[in-house]
Amino acid sequence: MKRSERLVAMTHFILDRPRELISLPYFSSKYEAAKSSISEDLGIIHKMFQHEGIGYLETVPGAAGGVKYIPAYSKTYSDSFVHQLCERLEDPERLLPGGYLFMSDILGDPEATRNIGRLFASAFSNREIDAIMTVATKGIPLAYAVASYLNAPVVIARRDPKVTEGSTVSINYVSGSTRKIQTMVLTKRSLKKGAKVCIIDDFMKAGGTINGMSNLLKEFEAEVAGIGVLAEAEDEEEERVVQDYISLVQIVNADDRRGTIEVRPGNLIDHI
Amino acid sequence: MKRSERLVAMTHFILDRPRELISLPYFSSKYEAAKSSISEDLGIIHKMFQHEGIGYLETVPGAAGGVKYIPAYSKTYSDSFVHQLCERLEDPERLLPGGYLFMSDILGDPEATRNIGRLFASAFSNREIDAIMTVATKGIPLAYAVASYLNAPVVIARRDPKVTEGSTVSINYVSGSTRKIQTMVLTKRSLKKGAKVCIIDDFMKAGGTINGMSNLLKEFEAEVAGIGVLAEAEDEEEERVVQDYISLVQIVNADDRRGTIEVRPGNLIDHI
Repeated sequence: MKRSERLVAMTHFILDRPRELISLPYFSSKYEAAKSSISEDLGIIHKMFQHEGIGYLETVPGAAGGVKYIPAYSKTYSDSFVHQLCERLEDPERLLPGGYLFMSDILGDPEATRNIGRLFASAFSNREIDAIMTVATKGIPLAYAVASYLNAPVVIARRDPKVTEGSTVSINYVSGSTRKIQTMVLTKRSLKKGAKVCIIDDFMKAGGTINGMSNLLKEFEAEVAGIGVLAEAEDEEEERVVQDYISLVQIVNADDRRGTIEVRPGNLIDHI
Repeated sequence: MKRSERLVAMTHFILDRPRELISLPYFSSKYEAAKSSISEDLGIIHKMFQHEGIGYLETVPGAAGGVKYIPAYSKTYSDSFVHQLCERLEDPERLLPGGYLFMSDILGDPEATRNIGRLFASAFSNREIDAIMTVATKGIPLAYAVASYLNAPVVIARRDPKVTEGSTVSINYVSGSTRKIQTMVLTKRSLKKGAKVCIIDDFMKAGGTINGMSNLLKEFEAEVAGIGVLAEAEDEEEERVVQDYISLVQIVNADDRRGTIEVRPGNLIDHI
């Protein structure tokens, strides 16, 4: 196999396995090439990943070492995506009663969800994360997108237990904005004690749902390693029960009666 | 930029945009290279994608032409994944009351869901598909995985309407195995008339839920372009209300009282 051919195959192989340690001897035998050639190839790939702003190869030294692709999207890439998203969201037709925003088209677009996942994975890239958690339904595509770049499993809390889940742990929580008492359940076998969990959701008003997920994690003796929301309603800041989180965008002055809305970049960009 | 460097960048760029037409002049200006060099690069990429069994580059001739990456995973790749999955599922500990199977760990594993998505995308690769549809909750990660390789949006039917959806269309349907009447809703703005829709779900017993989705599509004057399920319960074949579908695996003789279960490859492999 020529170097040019090997680079195509290796680039695919590496991109397909984010945060997975791959040893030099593995590459060497897979592509039937000397370790020195593989080393040079990895140098080229590392340089080009940085050039393209999609991350880098981390080298782990020693006998059990190798390389890991760490997805870390550049500030330029992130900035441009967040600004496009703000523009796309700042459309009065999206306003729904109660200050909610129609976002199902964006959440249904696999390219957009992939990009959102990349940005959160980049913001959380130096934290230790064992699992991604969300609550059904809208946060699910985002949780998977983040998980695929952080190479961690997804656990999904539900508002209703299902027979196909096996036994579950449930908690009651108070929704921050409506003050209604709600229930959230998570399958017993889904999380290990001490797991470091990243919570992902699509929308946060006062933060009651996210707070509910944090409380559910306590029942599992797991800990919150990070919180990421696609959109936060900025007007609710005073009542907010969640403090340390990362948001992609902030919705300001959403008023369905007047038909006005303003969408600004959230604090994610400061974490990249 | 050297050819070796350009190949790394182009491989990433192409893999990131399945089924998207990219013109030669676009590559040429992006990477500041002659069209003849880009053509050679694409030749190498095409050859290596086939060599790796991950698909091919389709060339669209003419002034508005270019290349498209069509993800089409090889029979070898698909066979090996399906057999591994059967082994992983054939564990009596997974048995739940009613002949259901615990699969949340597999559905929560982003690498597994990506692989499942690839296999369905390969099986449906020569069909025209405008959207992927599923019903909340468990089918969602699979629907997104398929969607990302088919470059189509996802629409999610729910069992309960939510305020953040806007106005919805709802239908009642009879669950095939339990004979209970259930409701399913889909947001009005989510599908265009005449859309060709691929239905994806995690599990099919008698097929009532999938049949419900087909009926919901009729309300939107959309049509079913394909049906894919991760696992089908083979024992229900006689009562089945859905005929033309693709399954990854077949669950045979699941008996939670005796603790026996057998999992076989489904018919997907015949479509690759």
